[in-house]
Amino acid sequence: MAIRNLITENELATQRDAMAVGTIIVLYNHEKKGIDEKLNDVGHDFLKSIISSLHVHLDKEQCLSIIVAKCEIGTMLKLEQELRRVAGITQLKFSYLVPTLGSSRAT
Amino acid sequence: MAIRNLITENELATQRDAMAVGTIIVLYNHEKKGIDEKLNDVGHDFLKSIISSLHVHLDKEQCLSIIVAKCEIGTMLKLEQELRRVAGITQLKFSYLVPTLGSSRAT
Amino acid sequence: MAIRNLITENELATQRDAMAVGTIIVLYNHEKKGIDEKLNDVGHDFLKSIISSLHVHLDKEQCLSIIVAKCEIGTMLKLEQELRRVAGITQLKFSYLVPTLGSSRAT
Amino acid sequence: MAIRNLITENELATQRDAMAVGTIIVLYNHEKKGIDEKLNDVGHDFLKSIISSLHVHLDKEQCLSIIVAKCEIGTMLKLEQELRRVAGITQLKFSYLVPTLGSSRAT
Repeated sequence: MAIRNLITENELATQRDAMAVGTIIVLYNHEKKGIDEKLNDVGHDFLKSIISSLHVHLDKEQCLSIIVAKCEIGTMLKLEQELRRVAGITQLKFSYLVPTLGSSRAT
Repeated sequence: MAIRNLITENELATQRDAMAVGTIIVLYNHEKKGIDEKLNDVGHDFLKSIISSLHVHLDKEQCLSIIVAKCEIGTMLKLEQELRRVAGITQLKFSYLVPTLGSSRAT
Repeated sequence: MAIRNLITENELATQRDAMAVGTIIVLYNHEKKGIDEKLNDVGHDFLKSIISSLHVHLDKEQCLSIIVAKCEIGTMLKLEQELRRVAGITQLKFSYLVPTLGSSRAT
Repeated sequence: MAIRNLITENELATQRDAMAVGTIIVLYNHEKKGIDEKLNDVGHDFLKSIISSLHVHLDKEQCLSIIVAKCEIGTMLKLEQELRRVAGITQLKFSYLVPTLGSSRAT
């Protein structure tokens, strides 16, 4: 699966104008002062691209934020970049797909 | 519908130990310093009761947080109370239902 | 709280054109044939009004669907009405708030 | 980014017992008869692993289901496999992260 993903992501990276839907999973330590606010600030800067975000309280300290976006791939990459800059994020995972490329097989 | 809701809520308020599922819709001004963090603090205090929260960026300033909880009604009322105490919240709406009371008709 | 809610809902019911955000919590028995599809059909009819829906598998049979909508109150009431018509729903709870009515106090 | 993801996924694939959090993004044509029900069936089989699912109506036909799971990687891979078997899915994307592996840098 990983190799297929690699090929797909390379192909799509050349299509920055294509409309995509994707998720950015952000894991962070909520005890870190100011991080909730910074993440929300970035979200508001991408107001029209984000459909909604799902927040899960993992344990006393760790938070999971799943940002669901629908926009051009280029915008999604910028959003990812801005989120990575927020100090205190421990892990981030970005994945997307392009609805119009959909065929009868799962990719 | 409102009168039916009123009756239902009075009935259920006497059953604080019943397991319920509910949503607390919180509208707040994200520009207000520290509010994201305070809301998340409350969420972490009710870690085991909250399934997940859905966050929607309404406009440049306004945020909507929909907290989905599954716990005893008493705990849900405490969660509501704690959220209402967070300075900066502009509106809050709480509604719940008790799965085991489910009949063949919507209430 | 219930009395305050009653007053609020009566007041708002006269403002069918006001933009609101709300949730419709639907509890249903997923074992009932065709119900997932019917609920999704209704959702697609209100494509532009629904931001997203959160689905929770409560147990082997029961499903919770929390539909988050942003539209005129009149449209939201129509959506609620259509959902209530779906056979197999065991409980339904609708609540909404009007962002522009937001004051400094939670209602 | 893609190469880093590839390495990470290979590393993690050897840790099937590790607790992970992840999302499976499923794109499908809702007009296809029975698909809503089949996807929900699979969800109920993984009741304890799925936190909640976010559903987005993309257009008249296309649906996006974002399944958020918290379980062992092995279970997550089984869930992915079961979802891929559902006829009518057009695209599927799976990504996860392991909270305990979290360091101070986003990966």
